Amino acid sequence: MAKRNAFYAQSGGVTAVINASACGVIETAHAHKNKIGKVYAGKNGIIGALREELIDTSKESAKTVAALKHTPSGAFGSCRHKLKNFTDDPSEYERLIAVFKAHDIGYFFYNGGGDSADTCNKVAQISEQLGYPIQAIHIPKTVDNDLPFTDNCPGFGSVAKYVAVSTKEASLDVASMCDTSTKVFILEVMGRHAGWIASAGGLAADQAGDPPHIILFPEIAFNREKFLKKVERTVKKNGYCVIVASEGAQYKDGTFIADAGTTDAFGHKQLGGVAPTLADMMKSELGYKYHWALADYLQRSARHIASATDVEQAYAVGKAAVEFALAGKSAVMVSIERKKSKKYAWQIGETALADVANVEKMMPRNFISRDGFGITELARDYLAPLIQGEDYPPYKNGIPQYAQLKNVLVERKLKARFKV
Amino acid sequence: MAKRNAFYAQSGGVTAVINASACGVIETAHAHKNKIGKVYAGKNGIIGALREELIDTSKESAKTVAALKHTPSGAFGSCRHKLKNFTDDPSEYERLIAVFKAHDIGYFFYNGGGDSADTCNKVAQISEQLGYPIQAIHIPKTVDNDLPFTDNCPGFGSVAKYVAVSTKEASLDVASMCDTSTKVFILEVMGRHAGWIASAGGLAADQAGDPPHIILFPEIAFNREKFLKKVERTVKKNGYCVIVASEGAQYKDGTFIADAGTTDAFGHKQLGGVAPTLADMMKSELGYKYHWALADYLQRSARHIASATDVEQAYAVGKAAVEFALAGKSAVMVSIERKKSKKYAWQIGETALADVANVEKMMPRNFISRDGFGITELARDYLAPLIQGEDYPPYKNGIPQYAQLKNVLVERKLKARFKV
Repeated sequence: MAKRNAFYAQSGGVTAVINASACGVIETAHAHKNKIGKVYAGKNGIIGALREELIDTSKESAKTVAALKHTPSGAFGSCRHKLKNFTDDPSEYERLIAVFKAHDIGYFFYNGGGDSADTCNKVAQISEQLGYPIQAIHIPKTVDNDLPFTDNCPGFGSVAKYVAVSTKEASLDVASMCDTSTKVFILEVMGRHAGWIASAGGLAADQAGDPPHIILFPEIAFNREKFLKKVERTVKKNGYCVIVASEGAQYKDGTFIADAGTTDAFGHKQLGGVAPTLADMMKSELGYKYHWALADYLQRSARHIASATDVEQAYAVGKAAVEFALAGKSAVMVSIERKKSKKYAWQIGETALADVANVEKMMPRNFISRDGFGITELARDYLAPLIQGEDYPPYKNGIPQYAQLKNVLVERKLKARFKV
Repeated sequence: MAKRNAFYAQSGGVTAVINASACGVIETAHAHKNKIGKVYAGKNGIIGALREELIDTSKESAKTVAALKHTPSGAFGSCRHKLKNFTDDPSEYERLIAVFKAHDIGYFFYNGGGDSADTCNKVAQISEQLGYPIQAIHIPKTVDNDLPFTDNCPGFGSVAKYVAVSTKEASLDVASMCDTSTKVFILEVMGRHAGWIASAGGLAADQAGDPPHIILFPEIAFNREKFLKKVERTVKKNGYCVIVASEGAQYKDGTFIADAGTTDAFGHKQLGGVAPTLADMMKSELGYKYHWALADYLQRSARHIASATDVEQAYAVGKAAVEFALAGKSAVMVSIERKKSKKYAWQIGETALADVANVEKMMPRNFISRDGFGITELARDYLAPLIQGEDYPPYKNGIPQYAQLKNVLVERKLKARFKV
């Protein structure tokens, strides 16, 4: 087998551990340098390939590459760019193949969620059509945990740990002040379509009745009256109520709570996310003093409180992608399989990309309590292992020391420029 | 000196390390049990004394008391209750003295901010007037860092570390996506009157030009045009702009940005905090895609990322309060003094409460850069030591293990009830 170069790109929303996957790819490729030449990373994801902006990862020291394992977000840049349909417009795919050809790239590692699995699959198909051999392997990544055929997605365990820990800590705050101050606290978390991230808030509870008292999932139609009654009952019983709300929580007709907004005393529509909209209900319907937090990017970049299990798995899927390629595989996604053991254990698996593309995995109904406001023991059994272990980054002067890459671009070989 | 009991109460907004001060009080009192009897904690702060709801801390194991050192928020409950003016209505003070007398309480340790320093001072004065001897010592606590005569306030170092780390992490996220996605990220932090917490965001920058690019302080009048120009210049230069905004940021006339709001296309006023209001300007004035986060209670309860320096100081001020009492002192606040050494060092000091009460310490102008959007080297020199060191809580199943107190109430001795 002739030695060929590899291309690696990060896609979509970044996570606390996507760089650990990059580290797994680069270190494993390096360990097989008789078979794999350079690892080029796309500057800002797939756009880097289209623009022929390839980062030469061999310019980084081994120490810097190793530091990627504890560095959050996308060290090479990521992007939100969905390739056009090949039959509608083959130009993007033709450009990719031209760039790959020019730089003798034989391996395509694409690190992302559902959309990128689809792109990765198309690259594999089209390389055949265009007669340029390339092995395309998908490396899963998404905080949303909504990819099918993998027990869980790297990136999710760390955001889950952040949400569980933050819910626990904020709940203690509210509990200690509720007698004279805030009665209701709302934490808004990510998850536009699936409630996995919100469900992780449930791990803050040690026993029944512990906060969070209410979790709002996109999978369960929001019933305003039932919700308000539950809040009122909870405050009467405990003195306070903690709510974890998914940004995707919605009414039965599919209207997001965030978009529904509410109307003030003058009939003006109030805009806002889920948390401020719910907070407004607290005030207008129940008269409770409230506070709310919006974790936003903090939750998916919080490498300081990453799950050790997640870091380990993120590295492992990157490593496995290279090993799959060396074994001659293509058009597959690396997956994580949970072993059927009593104690949590996992192994690397694989799935044909044709099956993965554009399927979203929602929370199963039996992971959500009967009243729709909490998680079941089944959910807890699934979630708990994913947040196990702490993997602290090194600190200097009180601040985490994250990798700072040089990101040196490879000299262009194509005359043509490509507008993205 | 006859052996007498002590009363300890937590006051106002809680912090990640106020329980470390409680731990310092209880453990130090225990070490002097020949002089101090029981330590009673007020259930929900001073209200617990008024209601004669006293928690017997001797019912907790030594292990649980030690665990307070790594437990955030107020383990005995806190409250927002400002005592009435003695000359207007002496009933509350008379009640306090009656409860202290009934339970043979000779030491009053009050753990809070400016308001509680005032209350503590009054208790000292009134105990003399009413002829019941009690030594009142104030233990400083506030995330706002706005108490005078102390170099810094326990609770601040940890929120500062949280804000610095979160700003650093979220900035990496924005940087990696800005080519095709979010251009402006806004983090709203606490600090209604003083910009100390917002200033800590500046510690995320290693060198000039690093994010955060803009900090908004309550001390600097908000100039909308200057602000928008700076955002635009920053995005043009770096591709993105990170903003840390104090909730107290305000216009020259004292109108909070949060209250000023903005008006939508229909002329309706949009409500919200600083962050959503600034975000709205990004959209309407500059057309940039934005994201924003509101840390709210997460920032002050984040014991998982507490500053080791802060934890140590919080414990030390609790310990010193007991030692002050044993040395016969009263009507004083324990303070933290920065030594004039090259390497950061500190020691315990004291200040007469008469001087402390109701004075707020703002950011000095020379801590804020000339353009009003950043911190100076002087500020950095002041802030950096306060976030030094990590002091991780123990974890079980991926979740921090915080102290769970029994909070057993002492039997009431007074027939009269007191309505608060």
